[in-house]
Amino acid sequence: MSDWGPSRRGFLAGVGGLAAGAAASPGLAAPKTGEAVPHAGAAEPFYGRHQSGILTPAQSHCYVAAFDIVATDKAAVAAMLQRWTEASARMTAGLSAQPRETDADSPASDSGEQLDLTPARLTLTFGFGAGLFVKDDKDRFGLAARRPEAFVDLPHFPGEQLVEQLTGGDLVIQACADDPQVPFHAVRQLSRLASEVAELRWVQSGFIGNFGKTTPRNLMGFKDGTGNPSTADAKLMDEHVWVGSEGPAWMRGGSYVVFRRSRMALEHWDRMKLSFQEQTFGREKVSGAPLGAKHEADKVDLDAADKDGNPIIPENAHIRLASADSNGGARILRRSYSYNDGVNFVAERWPPWHQGMEYDAGLIFVCFQRDPRTGFIQINEKLSRFDMMNQFVTNIGGGMFACPKGVEKGSYIGRELFE
Amino acid sequence: MSDWGPSRRGFLAGVGGLAAGAAASPGLAAPKTGEAVPHAGAAEPFYGRHQSGILTPAQSHCYVAAFDIVATDKAAVAAMLQRWTEASARMTAGLSAQPRETDADSPASDSGEQLDLTPARLTLTFGFGAGLFVKDDKDRFGLAARRPEAFVDLPHFPGEQLVEQLTGGDLVIQACADDPQVPFHAVRQLSRLASEVAELRWVQSGFIGNFGKTTPRNLMGFKDGTGNPSTADAKLMDEHVWVGSEGPAWMRGGSYVVFRRSRMALEHWDRMKLSFQEQTFGREKVSGAPLGAKHEADKVDLDAADKDGNPIIPENAHIRLASADSNGGARILRRSYSYNDGVNFVAERWPPWHQGMEYDAGLIFVCFQRDPRTGFIQINEKLSRFDMMNQFVTNIGGGMFACPKGVEKGSYIGRELFE
Repeated sequence: MSDWGPSRRGFLAGVGGLAAGAAASPGLAAPKTGEAVPHAGAAEPFYGRHQSGILTPAQSHCYVAAFDIVATDKAAVAAMLQRWTEASARMTAGLSAQPRETDADSPASDSGEQLDLTPARLTLTFGFGAGLFVKDDKDRFGLAARRPEAFVDLPHFPGEQLVEQLTGGDLVIQACADDPQVPFHAVRQLSRLASEVAELRWVQSGFIGNFGKTTPRNLMGFKDGTGNPSTADAKLMDEHVWVGSEGPAWMRGGSYVVFRRSRMALEHWDRMKLSFQEQTFGREKVSGAPLGAKHEADKVDLDAADKDGNPIIPENAHIRLASADSNGGARILRRSYSYNDGVNFVAERWPPWHQGMEYDAGLIFVCFQRDPRTGFIQINEKLSRFDMMNQFVTNIGGGMFACPKGVEKGSYIGRELFE
Repeated sequence: MSDWGPSRRGFLAGVGGLAAGAAASPGLAAPKTGEAVPHAGAAEPFYGRHQSGILTPAQSHCYVAAFDIVATDKAAVAAMLQRWTEASARMTAGLSAQPRETDADSPASDSGEQLDLTPARLTLTFGFGAGLFVKDDKDRFGLAARRPEAFVDLPHFPGEQLVEQLTGGDLVIQACADDPQVPFHAVRQLSRLASEVAELRWVQSGFIGNFGKTTPRNLMGFKDGTGNPSTADAKLMDEHVWVGSEGPAWMRGGSYVVFRRSRMALEHWDRMKLSFQEQTFGREKVSGAPLGAKHEADKVDLDAADKDGNPIIPENAHIRLASADSNGGARILRRSYSYNDGVNFVAERWPPWHQGMEYDAGLIFVCFQRDPRTGFIQINEKLSRFDMMNQFVTNIGGGMFACPKGVEKGSYIGRELFE
């Protein structure tokens, strides 16, 4: 059975050469857990001990899609996860989601907007929401007893304004690639393969400017991710990112992901003085250096004081409150993207009562951790109360998901949970 | 006066080296009117006989922003266009929009998310809407008599469902670059410089997969732009794209742009047979060849018939109805982008009355032409009535704008109209 691709017209050496090359050796690409950014056309591995898209060096674009399960039968969900696994292994290798239809009178098996494109380092990372275990107080799939202890509900944090339609979901797919069309294509095919079992609940696309060259800047103009633990440090990853023997078998080697749709009041931020912006972050804008230091990579000295004894990094600066030192050693692996969803009409309810268009833009905050109770939740309990940045950022959506361990060839995502 | 950038901390040779290099020779980059895609970090010229962003080989990302003018004074509009011109010349060369504030206690002069980024071939193309000439039957700036004869109102086309908030505008900026963060940054600074004079009305961001390598595919999976006139053919461009002596002085060397937000019913399209999809376009999906031919670049033979005498390219196929031969020789220069604005809940009003999430995704159709009456309008009068594609595409926004001739150094966009 032939696949969608240039071979259809015998152009094997033509336009789609890269994709054809990837097809010849699916899964054989070398795993990349370091921080170097490989060639944009390369294929990331799909099978492995861990899911890709967690330690994978961030791609330039992401598309996150959360689904509600509408099937009532556990076997139907497992069958869909099998379809998703097979299609994901194909697409991350640069193939269509399914083998192509055998003749032109069959329904198109793939929408085809990825034809001519390389795999673009596509990764597809799957997560399970709380609703897979318990929904409306109902153990709908008989999985309630298998919900990991660490997989608590996210508490309500001060200041957040969660929009129900942009929050939660029973399943999530994080699709990332170095081309915006590739993750859109992937989610579109997976959504089609979910027919009758799961339906899209919310989606969010994002981007990183100049990815890979330097620490990316968020839309506030500041470098974001400087203090991340190094993904090249396996010990650190085992300690802070991967679930170990404390978790159930299906989560060992997996991780918990938190997505937060953090809308930024960019119009307000842009009216602030540079010095105030720098105090808010605790870093210099241009260099990214911690206040009082010279270089981005310099150690953050929370004890440094000026000649009057005042802290150089303010008490409520973002990097102070988010630091491991302020949170009992808690560390998370951030993998965030900026988003730009256009403009909306807003009538402000505070002085100067501005009425007009405001950006719906900001950060898709993404973080992975071994245990959310001692990871994101611990850190955000403090940040949500005291961070100076809160006056410019509102969390309006997202959710937390348990990303199971990686898949071996012949198995499927989450199999050990379902069988 | 120093600029935002690495020189602030004396890191001239550091992270921002590329931007600093561009800064050293703003406007000196060689004009590129051919179809080759230059290095992604290169700067496109801002000054010149024509505005950039029209013949410029398409960049990977675009961000279109339409504005309503709120000022009542013509001089205020002209002063804003001067600010826009100066800031645009700076940003396309890789600089901040304005010189940086002289000390850290001044309001930030630039939001800074472009720091560390190259110019990424940024182009900023400006257009004037009908509302600049006449609004609510009022000649508000004394410019009504200067409205070009060719700049008619777009007629209502069958099937379109224009949303008022996504349509029209008195001014437009088309920002394109090879990095999504660069056009967002540019429009954000220009919007800030418009303060009290113009306000955002609608924005739309878009992307092209694998830009520059092959004819890009739209989200229906088909190649889009195959039949475009060659931008390397100056005679063809003079004939079909650039306004000549028939136009007023400020439009000679300019062009008319039409933006159409064309939402695609992707869920419906994905259920169609491949053969039906190909008949709808009149081309093969994988190769892009016209039906009955072998290669993408093969001539479209509208007269070809099968053994029963039926046309091989159906009577209502898109490429037949859009062709110059079907439209008295009318040609336009397309420069479209795909868009992905997430999902919305839709309750269908036709069988099978599906209720659920549907994509808000499709094409930002963009075309430039010398005269819209014999360009887009002529072609779309036919397409909007008979194109098989209409059942899958709905136009919900956009507008038409007069893009004045290019700017010389020391002048500003549209000066000859205002003075």
